[in-house]
Amino acid sequence: MLTKEGESALLDLRQDIDRIDQTIISLLAERKNRVSQVVELKKKYSLPVHHPAREEDMLSSLRKQAAGADIDPDHVEDLFRGILKESRRSQTLRIARKAVRPDTTVLLVGADGGMGMYFRKWFLDAGYTVRGLEKTDWHRVGELCDGIGLAVISVPIGATVPVIERLGPHLPPDCVLADLTSIKSPPLAAMLSSHSGPVVGLHPLFGPTTSTMDKQTVAVTPGRHSADYQWVLDQLAVWGAVLVETGADVHDKIMDIVQALRHFATFSFGRFLSRKGIDLQQSLEFSSPIYRLELGMVGRLFAQDPALYSEIIFATPQRRALLKEFISSLAENMELLEGEDKEAFNGQFRKIAEWFGPFSDQAMRESTYLIDKLAERF
Amino acid sequence: MLTKEGESALLDLRQDIDRIDQTIISLLAERKNRVSQVVELKKKYSLPVHHPAREEDMLSSLRKQAAGADIDPDHVEDLFRGILKESRRSQTLRIARKAVRPDTTVLLVGADGGMGMYFRKWFLDAGYTVRGLEKTDWHRVGELCDGIGLAVISVPIGATVPVIERLGPHLPPDCVLADLTSIKSPPLAAMLSSHSGPVVGLHPLFGPTTSTMDKQTVAVTPGRHSADYQWVLDQLAVWGAVLVETGADVHDKIMDIVQALRHFATFSFGRFLSRKGIDLQQSLEFSSPIYRLELGMVGRLFAQDPALYSEIIFATPQRRALLKEFISSLAENMELLEGEDKEAFNGQFRKIAEWFGPFSDQAMRESTYLIDKLAERF
Repeated sequence: MLTKEGESALLDLRQDIDRIDQTIISLLAERKNRVSQVVELKKKYSLPVHHPAREEDMLSSLRKQAAGADIDPDHVEDLFRGILKESRRSQTLRIARKAVRPDTTVLLVGADGGMGMYFRKWFLDAGYTVRGLEKTDWHRVGELCDGIGLAVISVPIGATVPVIERLGPHLPPDCVLADLTSIKSPPLAAMLSSHSGPVVGLHPLFGPTTSTMDKQTVAVTPGRHSADYQWVLDQLAVWGAVLVETGADVHDKIMDIVQALRHFATFSFGRFLSRKGIDLQQSLEFSSPIYRLELGMVGRLFAQDPALYSEIIFATPQRRALLKEFISSLAENMELLEGEDKEAFNGQFRKIAEWFGPFSDQAMRESTYLIDKLAERF
Repeated sequence: MLTKEGESALLDLRQDIDRIDQTIISLLAERKNRVSQVVELKKKYSLPVHHPAREEDMLSSLRKQAAGADIDPDHVEDLFRGILKESRRSQTLRIARKAVRPDTTVLLVGADGGMGMYFRKWFLDAGYTVRGLEKTDWHRVGELCDGIGLAVISVPIGATVPVIERLGPHLPPDCVLADLTSIKSPPLAAMLSSHSGPVVGLHPLFGPTTSTMDKQTVAVTPGRHSADYQWVLDQLAVWGAVLVETGADVHDKIMDIVQALRHFATFSFGRFLSRKGIDLQQSLEFSSPIYRLELGMVGRLFAQDPALYSEIIFATPQRRALLKEFISSLAENMELLEGEDKEAFNGQFRKIAEWFGPFSDQAMRESTYLIDKLAERF
């Protein structure tokens, strides 16, 4: 039983805790106020509102402070990621999803595809006038292009260049021409030669099932008259996207890896599993969360439209060459197996680990976090 | 462009924010300290440590305060649920998880390896007497085995069978003999022939960096006298693990895929990335959350001990044969590339998708959840 003395000690401690919690809330209110001021300032000077690098710096210094105070750094990182996210959310709500150029008419070419529908909604919600141009609409292309300020091409990779060439002559000279294709060099060249006005290549690195554009990346490959298409980039930034600018060639080389190689490797792995007739359910019963996650990545691919992937994988000759090189490179690993040489394997492993460098530790941290989330939920 | 004035205003605001964040962390440290005192007090008076009703009261009063300070009450509730959860977790770690057979002495063979150290800590925290047997301790093996109730083998795969054969003759007849190896047939056979008492094969499907055993899977391959080793399984269950029982052969076949093939495919992918000298940081800048996740899985592998993987990959001849078959199977995909045949690819894709069946949708759901988590956090 609790004595009088014990009871009063407990009460004191609880009051201390309540006071601490109240102070934390006051601090959060103060923080919100300061963040609003930062946003005002940034808008005044047209600076990007999000600053991912600063956030990461903040977080790693907070982690250090937490470790010093004997609090789990992961916990503190979690808390502050929550605070930062809420902060972004409330700022985004405040500036709403306002149109940067509300009086503009936007033409979406391929408005009935996944990304087309996605952007149609965003432009409409922001107050733009939106027209769609589908396959069956070419007979009235002149009418549809009349008076538009922006044309966005959102068609399958293979159709992009012909569609651009067909559309170009109908565009008003000052209209911004942009595309959303996941390769950039051929469409950008086609846009520049088919249209004399402002041109910009865009590649949203997310799918149409993404609910917000918050922190989603859009790759930007400049074409011509950047001052005239800047408002389109501003619009994406207002919607929360992070813009990353690069040349079309560099972009395509990165995507050879980030999209084509990755999808192809996943496809090959899935193909082998199906060929061996692996019992997936049984294998999941005996699986760690990370296996579940990795198998999930493979399963996820096969839940989607094959055309999406074949378009990406077969997009360019360079890409196909890279994938062939990948297959050939695997033969090297055959030697390791045939030699049954653990030491050779370990040596290779260490060399690769060195090359991965600090990224490995970061990957370990991030994926451990996710694995915990997965274990919590499933 | 930012003026001097604007820059200094921005800097001031950021310093304010940093100061606020630091104060919050100090408060969290103070809070943790008070909570520990509460727990001490409660233990002294044998009061229950958790007090759900008080937590709900606290949360609703914090919600009110938040609303008054123009902060989203849901956000504040989320934050404090996180704080309370962490508080419970760190308290739980402190009071550890009780021993099912507290008077038992446990011998850990390989107590200085990753998993050895992991289980040493758990057994110790639960109140068991724990001894370690390392390579250099064989001269006093008799003394170390004297009176023990459980011997756990936690050595590299290649060493498991010889270690078991060497240890067996020294074990008390009623001692439980268990191993933690990731393959089960050879160790189980060795344990059964080297020891006449209770025998069970265990394979914890998680690594030593896992902070809790909550919901983590342990594969159990029965050996002999299950009633006598049941307490070991109960102990794992008390620690939060989920036990899945199977035959050793079935287990090993599943692990050929779940571990060996998966690790090997990841290794090969990482090897190709390093060979091509891909700029990882640049590729991450242009990446969607799912790429980040997938690349993270690769990076994660290379953050770990190569020996761990070579032991797994080279463990048995069947395993090596499977991996060779995997490499050969990739040549089929070369044909798809050389034919530049999108339709053939799509056809294959559909067949595999059909084979994956409902798992694909499940994978899509789970991975979408995780991707959202990832986007939230990074």
